[in-house]
Amino acid sequence: MRKGRLIVISGPSGVGKGTVVKALMEREPEIRLSVSATTRDMRPGEIDGVQYYFVSHETFEQMIAEDSFLEHAQYVGNRYGTPEAPVDRMLAEGRDVILEIEVQGGLQVMQRRPDAISVFIAAPSFKVLGERLRGRGDTDEEKVLMRLQQARTEYLVAPQYHYIVINDRLEDAVSDIQAILRAEALKTEHQQHLLKEAL
Amino acid sequence: MRKGRLIVISGPSGVGKGTVVKALMEREPEIRLSVSATTRDMRPGEIDGVQYYFVSHETFEQMIAEDSFLEHAQYVGNRYGTPEAPVDRMLAEGRDVILEIEVQGGLQVMQRRPDAISVFIAAPSFKVLGERLRGRGDTDEEKVLMRLQQARTEYLVAPQYHYIVINDRLEDAVSDIQAILRAEALKTEHQQHLLKEAL
Repeated sequence: MRKGRLIVISGPSGVGKGTVVKALMEREPEIRLSVSATTRDMRPGEIDGVQYYFVSHETFEQMIAEDSFLEHAQYVGNRYGTPEAPVDRMLAEGRDVILEIEVQGGLQVMQRRPDAISVFIAAPSFKVLGERLRGRGDTDEEKVLMRLQQARTEYLVAPQYHYIVINDRLEDAVSDIQAILRAEALKTEHQQHLLKEAL
Repeated sequence: MRKGRLIVISGPSGVGKGTVVKALMEREPEIRLSVSATTRDMRPGEIDGVQYYFVSHETFEQMIAEDSFLEHAQYVGNRYGTPEAPVDRMLAEGRDVILEIEVQGGLQVMQRRPDAISVFIAAPSFKVLGERLRGRGDTDEEKVLMRLQQARTEYLVAPQYHYIVINDRLEDAVSDIQAILRAEALKTEHQQHLLKEAL
């Protein structure tokens, strides 16, 4: 059976990457989304093991010590990490697995798993990104400016990703990622078994 | 204006690459097809400058001497070549240009223009390739076997192409190439100008 592919999707806060990933998974229901572990508090409506695995700081430290994470990072005072075992299990079952993670973690995954496909989702412009951040109810202008500052830094990391998708129209961004996944499978290094079969 | 992209499409005789390219151009009418020069005789119904530029051996030699070809090759006793100037003109106009050429020429283009996107079209199996060759009226079994032998050698060159598309169902092969062209445009090296605009 064909092994699944690891897909890293990153992008600044407010760019709409959660919406893009959700729409992508509706179109490609066989893709799996990795669930991260976090030390942050559970919010109302969240379920342990669905949005996140909610763990204590001690458990998180122990998982680091046991090298259980594909990546882990600190973000606004809390820790986030991708447990490696469930991802590898899904990949072994032939499922493509999406990691929707911050650039800190994205780069770690690319180093640890050079075969991962990496996509950075960018906004059409910083003006639009600012509008989206304000539009989702971030009324504290200082926080918006801090997020925009953070986004600028993340854009400096973007050139280390394989692909950059501009999330202007949602439909187009999703189709872009579908095209990337289809084209990646056609790369010669993944197709040579077909030539062997033919010969 | 965005510069066009050079797209090399090769594949064995009988694989249906002409049909794939024709169907692709119907879906993507802004793509241009390069016209080759050849020393072979014009066949009934062919028009000079449409299927080929029909030139004498002397003219062909002179074009080689003037380094006017993007690639040139010998095939079954005749010479074929891609004049570089018209291709560069179309690229400068922002058009993607397809070169539908044999592997001999394909490798030359990849060396001369490392930014070219290269796609090798393969058959689902040699059995199918044989059937297609016979089905298109090649009743001389020895010629079919010679073409299959030639195809086997071309498959040894296929790993030097970026992508391998299996022409099983025509629709799928065309969609594969569309996905490749879409994904190639999203590669980070082609998208960095967008990040600069955003910053």
